[in-house]
Amino acid sequence: MSNQQGLKVAVIGGGSSYTPEIVEGFIQKYNEMPIRELWLVDIEEGKHKLEIVGELAKRMVKKAGIPTEVHLTLNRREAIKDADFVTTQIRVGLLEARKRDEHIPIKYGVIGQETTGPGGMLKALRTVPVILDICRDIEELAPNAWMLNFTNPAGIVTEAVAKHTTVKSIGLCNSPINFQKFLAKQYGVSQSEALPEFVGINHLHWVTAAYVNGEDKLNELIDGGKEYTASNVTAMGWDYDFLSSLGAVPTYYLKYFYMMTEMFEDIKASYEKNGTRAEVVSRVEAELFELYKDENLQEKPKQLEQRGGAFYSEAAVNLMYSLHNNKQDIQTVNVSNGNIYDFLPADASIEVNCVITSHGPIPLPPQRVPSHVKGLLKAVKTYEELTIEAAITGDRGIALQALAHHPLVPSVTVAKDMLNEMLEANRKYLPNFFK
Amino acid sequence: MSNQQGLKVAVIGGGSSYTPEIVEGFIQKYNEMPIRELWLVDIEEGKHKLEIVGELAKRMVKKAGIPTEVHLTLNRREAIKDADFVTTQIRVGLLEARKRDEHIPIKYGVIGQETTGPGGMLKALRTVPVILDICRDIEELAPNAWMLNFTNPAGIVTEAVAKHTTVKSIGLCNSPINFQKFLAKQYGVSQSEALPEFVGINHLHWVTAAYVNGEDKLNELIDGGKEYTASNVTAMGWDYDFLSSLGAVPTYYLKYFYMMTEMFEDIKASYEKNGTRAEVVSRVEAELFELYKDENLQEKPKQLEQRGGAFYSEAAVNLMYSLHNNKQDIQTVNVSNGNIYDFLPADASIEVNCVITSHGPIPLPPQRVPSHVKGLLKAVKTYEELTIEAAITGDRGIALQALAHHPLVPSVTVAKDMLNEMLEANRKYLPNFFK
Amino acid sequence: MSNQQGLKVAVIGGGSSYTPEIVEGFIQKYNEMPIRELWLVDIEEGKHKLEIVGELAKRMVKKAGIPTEVHLTLNRREAIKDADFVTTQIRVGLLEARKRDEHIPIKYGVIGQETTGPGGMLKALRTVPVILDICRDIEELAPNAWMLNFTNPAGIVTEAVAKHTTVKSIGLCNSPINFQKFLAKQYGVSQSEALPEFVGINHLHWVTAAYVNGEDKLNELIDGGKEYTASNVTAMGWDYDFLSSLGAVPTYYLKYFYMMTEMFEDIKASYEKNGTRAEVVSRVEAELFELYKDENLQEKPKQLEQRGGAFYSEAAVNLMYSLHNNKQDIQTVNVSNGNIYDFLPADASIEVNCVITSHGPIPLPPQRVPSHVKGLLKAVKTYEELTIEAAITGDRGIALQALAHHPLVPSVTVAKDMLNEMLEANRKYLPNFFK
Amino acid sequence: MSNQQGLKVAVIGGGSSYTPEIVEGFIQKYNEMPIRELWLVDIEEGKHKLEIVGELAKRMVKKAGIPTEVHLTLNRREAIKDADFVTTQIRVGLLEARKRDEHIPIKYGVIGQETTGPGGMLKALRTVPVILDICRDIEELAPNAWMLNFTNPAGIVTEAVAKHTTVKSIGLCNSPINFQKFLAKQYGVSQSEALPEFVGINHLHWVTAAYVNGEDKLNELIDGGKEYTASNVTAMGWDYDFLSSLGAVPTYYLKYFYMMTEMFEDIKASYEKNGTRAEVVSRVEAELFELYKDENLQEKPKQLEQRGGAFYSEAAVNLMYSLHNNKQDIQTVNVSNGNIYDFLPADASIEVNCVITSHGPIPLPPQRVPSHVKGLLKAVKTYEELTIEAAITGDRGIALQALAHHPLVPSVTVAKDMLNEMLEANRKYLPNFFK
Repeated sequence: MSNQQGLKVAVIGGGSSYTPEIVEGFIQKYNEMPIRELWLVDIEEGKHKLEIVGELAKRMVKKAGIPTEVHLTLNRREAIKDADFVTTQIRVGLLEARKRDEHIPIKYGVIGQETTGPGGMLKALRTVPVILDICRDIEELAPNAWMLNFTNPAGIVTEAVAKHTTVKSIGLCNSPINFQKFLAKQYGVSQSEALPEFVGINHLHWVTAAYVNGEDKLNELIDGGKEYTASNVTAMGWDYDFLSSLGAVPTYYLKYFYMMTEMFEDIKASYEKNGTRAEVVSRVEAELFELYKDENLQEKPKQLEQRGGAFYSEAAVNLMYSLHNNKQDIQTVNVSNGNIYDFLPADASIEVNCVITSHGPIPLPPQRVPSHVKGLLKAVKTYEELTIEAAITGDRGIALQALAHHPLVPSVTVAKDMLNEMLEANRKYLPNFFK
Repeated sequence: MSNQQGLKVAVIGGGSSYTPEIVEGFIQKYNEMPIRELWLVDIEEGKHKLEIVGELAKRMVKKAGIPTEVHLTLNRREAIKDADFVTTQIRVGLLEARKRDEHIPIKYGVIGQETTGPGGMLKALRTVPVILDICRDIEELAPNAWMLNFTNPAGIVTEAVAKHTTVKSIGLCNSPINFQKFLAKQYGVSQSEALPEFVGINHLHWVTAAYVNGEDKLNELIDGGKEYTASNVTAMGWDYDFLSSLGAVPTYYLKYFYMMTEMFEDIKASYEKNGTRAEVVSRVEAELFELYKDENLQEKPKQLEQRGGAFYSEAAVNLMYSLHNNKQDIQTVNVSNGNIYDFLPADASIEVNCVITSHGPIPLPPQRVPSHVKGLLKAVKTYEELTIEAAITGDRGIALQALAHHPLVPSVTVAKDMLNEMLEANRKYLPNFFK
Repeated sequence: MSNQQGLKVAVIGGGSSYTPEIVEGFIQKYNEMPIRELWLVDIEEGKHKLEIVGELAKRMVKKAGIPTEVHLTLNRREAIKDADFVTTQIRVGLLEARKRDEHIPIKYGVIGQETTGPGGMLKALRTVPVILDICRDIEELAPNAWMLNFTNPAGIVTEAVAKHTTVKSIGLCNSPINFQKFLAKQYGVSQSEALPEFVGINHLHWVTAAYVNGEDKLNELIDGGKEYTASNVTAMGWDYDFLSSLGAVPTYYLKYFYMMTEMFEDIKASYEKNGTRAEVVSRVEAELFELYKDENLQEKPKQLEQRGGAFYSEAAVNLMYSLHNNKQDIQTVNVSNGNIYDFLPADASIEVNCVITSHGPIPLPPQRVPSHVKGLLKAVKTYEELTIEAAITGDRGIALQALAHHPLVPSVTVAKDMLNEMLEANRKYLPNFFK
Repeated sequence: MSNQQGLKVAVIGGGSSYTPEIVEGFIQKYNEMPIRELWLVDIEEGKHKLEIVGELAKRMVKKAGIPTEVHLTLNRREAIKDADFVTTQIRVGLLEARKRDEHIPIKYGVIGQETTGPGGMLKALRTVPVILDICRDIEELAPNAWMLNFTNPAGIVTEAVAKHTTVKSIGLCNSPINFQKFLAKQYGVSQSEALPEFVGINHLHWVTAAYVNGEDKLNELIDGGKEYTASNVTAMGWDYDFLSSLGAVPTYYLKYFYMMTEMFEDIKASYEKNGTRAEVVSRVEAELFELYKDENLQEKPKQLEQRGGAFYSEAAVNLMYSLHNNKQDIQTVNVSNGNIYDFLPADASIEVNCVITSHGPIPLPPQRVPSHVKGLLKAVKTYEELTIEAAITGDRGIALQALAHHPLVPSVTVAKDMLNEMLEANRKYLPNFFK
């Protein structure tokens, strides 16, 4: 570590359209968390985007008047060496692969989605081996670095890293910070005065308490019927009786489970009209990169906020900041379960409020776990464990078990046919399955 | 207890068409388990059947030349008083209610089945309060009696009794004994030489080992592709790759989960053609009672074996026999979980191999619990816990949670509409919901 | 609650010599935590002391120029009514009882100590019923109040309250804050920069990490050999090899277990020379009350710090402050275990770092629990559970089991004889045992 | 395996004075469990005894008229190759080492005993590495063999084997079978009609139920005051009030904990008069071997029953018999904990009633675990875990932790000095500690 003279940060997948947001965060927090070197890393296929976004980053830093050096590289190892923080925001197979993840299941009458269901599973199968490769480099070149993973499916990826490497890693999602902002806004308080309590795992969590200056406003929220959602999930109202007897606010990703029929119809209709979310994102990204090219642009453009992963980078910068400064504040991240949920394995990843210290996040046991949700939680976590095992071994039998036991998949026959087609379609990115 | 001079047994629901089978069992085992008094109890609506079946029972006993007294009564308390064993085989709402349980879900695109899914839930809501009433009588009048419950859904009923009464109860299903017989037949050995190991809960179990004289034949069974099934579930072949990667043989009830689409289509087609299983059973029962009326009939007629619950009574008699004689043999029954599965509550009912002693069944921890099945198991058990709570409180919100979290129900909207219709249709039998 | 216009605090045992410290704390924190009414409560026997210390409290408040009203009363219910905080610092049987707790065991060759071993057990038997009586008043008159218990044995008392009442209670000990201060002093940092991690239960904990600005200094501490201790426990050096292989710093109370022989000899020698700690404290208290009587005294006298329970009140005021202001800082308190230690019951009290929020303390799972200490921890907790049961039932058999299984008691014979003598000597304070 | 034509059994430590008992067992059970080859193995130092006892074995077999071949060998690998059963009954360091184990602690005021306390620990340190060596041979030469370990400390040895090898091993002690015989005798029933339930671990168990033909006679036993004990532990009456409030009958080894003072005095007095148990056993063994030499002796001499380990071999033969014949009867053996006790690790060895099947023992969860004993159980198991780790690593720090946390050791100082002396005295047998 060389953080005496400022920090070294490596951003794997640095050519992403999100990068300007994280750069903005580094600029704002420079005084308390000075970044000496920022390394944006990408692969050959991403070189062009890396250059565009990298030049923007340089202009932003220059305008801010801070001495951070911005490096662009295709050499991951050079970037990782002695880094204090490594973030990963990669997309194996690019948006084309996402498109397939979203399209194929629809043919089988199953929800096609980036992180949930068969689409999420294939994304995991492609991504886990690549992330573990990155981890081998970190183990060797920067064993003390914190790895912040916001590559989806973040829960699965974080669990794979914890089970199979010695890297100090934390998984990150923008969904919790979005709810916190939503809660703060509802009550006209600052973000730090709003503290939701989350139960569950990544993209499958329930808000079971919503403290505003220490007072729980959950029932008010449920009664008020104001809904929080995100740009990548269709807003579709919850049934009041259901929420009220549930005694919790489910994340919008839970609509895929609780409103499976309706969400499938919605996805299918959109697909037939405009294509799936992958196509939408492609267009947004193209527009963003057009903006980024503008040599007069010296800050994060407003349009980025509509991209879907809003506040991802804010979450990441906050987390680095608290790790670096031993802030001991509460943030919601993905870590290993330990004893928190007694019906999940100790090495399962969970998404949970943590106190962030310089020696890492310490999870806070939720004060109430509604018994209603334990079954679904266990069912999805079982699928996740099998998916990790399949990704690493390339064992089709295990992959079949994972998919056949996924709550969104209606039968073994569907699971098998769909799996075969999806594996074949991803052959290029699945060396473990096609040796 | 008066078992010095022979035992007193009370059969609640004694007018059932199954009764001749249990009588036959008592006759065969008379020497080691002498029944002094056999009380067949039924309710006013069942009086006619009780008389028919009761007279047959008397003829059977007479022919066997044993001194067992057969009593017919509508007075449950008289029958229970000082009994050594109480068995329950009741059907609240009769076959008409079962018909509704099977029909209504089909309209919503959901599997309608006697014990699995919405049908099983409504059956539980009707049955649990009645069973708890019976338990109050046992607590008062025969506190040392063993209660053998084979009223479905047997797992839920057994768990409700364990949680809410002090009665010494054991839940019983014919599915395990059927598999044991199937296994013995495959290998040409006696039943006692065949020992399957079951993982799971009632109507949701997996055979994870199949010992024949101590050697595990599970893989042979899977490879051989011979299927065991039952008359009330359509035989529909398992996918070999699925079974093989599962490493276990699922009970036929698991087809409702693993082949949801196909089973729904099958049920719907049958329904449109012949009505559901309730209608089939009605016809079979009518025929059986015609046979029973024959005053020359002095033994259990062969036709009873086609009834669906084959060997239920054999299982019950075996169990009583081992309890009475402290046999310490292994039988598969429903008891409380304790520490057996660390992801289920201690007071959850499970279906598990037990050593049967005179002080009760002692569960044998399964030697292998495939991680694949833990999610589904937890999901269904969560539904069961909520169903018990709903049955006792009459709380619609909890009932909604139970149904909405059932793996066979595709959305909250479907759950809510279907629940409302089903509750209304059962109004007469649900005083807790309609006060 | 009436905290709109400032808080109401009831101090049960207000005539204690510690009271000036807590008053000082309230004065210092007045701006962020304004106390409207401070009620000092005591019993008839303590009236004289209450008046002395109460007058000093009034002079202190007056000098500070804050509007807090100080009330002195023997009417506990009047004090508790609508209180925001209730603190308990009582001593059932006064110092005379402590003297017996310390003296009698010595005759049997067993360590006599206020909170550890047979002395602590008798203190618990006297105290638990009185505390539960106080809790009945709180349940009725101030159900939303936080009860801060610093009556010893604090772990046992806290667990009894959690198990048998609905009062929101937190147990408090000065030992953790003392270690934190010790750590801060060693490294010349402020208290908030020093964060020890504690594993264990009240008076039986181990420091397993010692963060100074986020860096763990534990090994340095062990290697440096600087010892932290307290005025009520003889400083006796730890064996370096032992500490080093233990990988933790034990609290000084652990000397009673790890150096049983030496500590017994030391206690016995002191006893023969100067009497036990009770006698020492009697003399110190007498001197303190002489000081308190001085009408010119308007602040906490320096001498109070030598009293033994140094910083108890600082800990209490810090805790109230963070509860009131939702500070979300980390403090070490006694709460129920939940899932934190998987080898202790969920309702066992543990002493653990917590985040203090306005809805209560949330425990932080320790990052490392040395396997070495689990046995001793479980052994003492088993004794504690039995002691609570004995205190409430007055069952001598359970009391015998508690004492016979205490690690400091060498045999059942000793346990039985010693128990009989100690119960008899406390007859007046043990109505449950002498009905 | 070659059990088509009869079994091959290897007895490691075959020169033991116990061997005639096991040979007698094989003769009696020959029809149901035909032993084709019996290999008695010993080391060079034991050659003389091996020959004496081996010749007796041959005479016994001949007289019985069975075709079992008896082989005597110093070549362990030859004996193990393709064996069906391997039993271990070794004593590393011979009786001289036991003498030191018993003598040295007395100097430090600590109980010196073969399997409990410091003596048992040193025995474990000497024995575990040798047993693991034997296991390496079994893994290689007879991977399907069952290893029956009755080498003490049997619990520790069994746990070490389970943790560090793939051998199918079962630990065996004669204490449970002795209690069963005692119970049967009290009630004049056959052994199979008496079923005690044991809670705990090897040499630290409690009888919590005592079924005679299915009826629990535990309270009668406690009230009757008849004591069961063994020849190697002084009979010293239990306090009735203690037993009665304990609600269980402790094994005689628990006297070392519950009557530490008295047992120490007794051991010390015996030691000063006749030497410790090692000396007594030396004399008994010398006499036995004199008898064995008699060429007219063709059966197990009566005197062997006074040797101390009575019925050890009966227990072993019963176990082999049930494993071989898939008897599914209940026997009490040492196996891994799994989920049986939720406060002990899954891989801890426990002594528990098991159903013995041809695929191994399946543990029966005890129906009642008195909370009273959990602390002591956990404390001793913690010591055992540390001892295994110390034996394998040779780490003195861990050995010190083990001893310092043993309930019989009064202080760290004593632990350290005693450990140093004992390690030094065993230097020859502790290569891991003296590299």
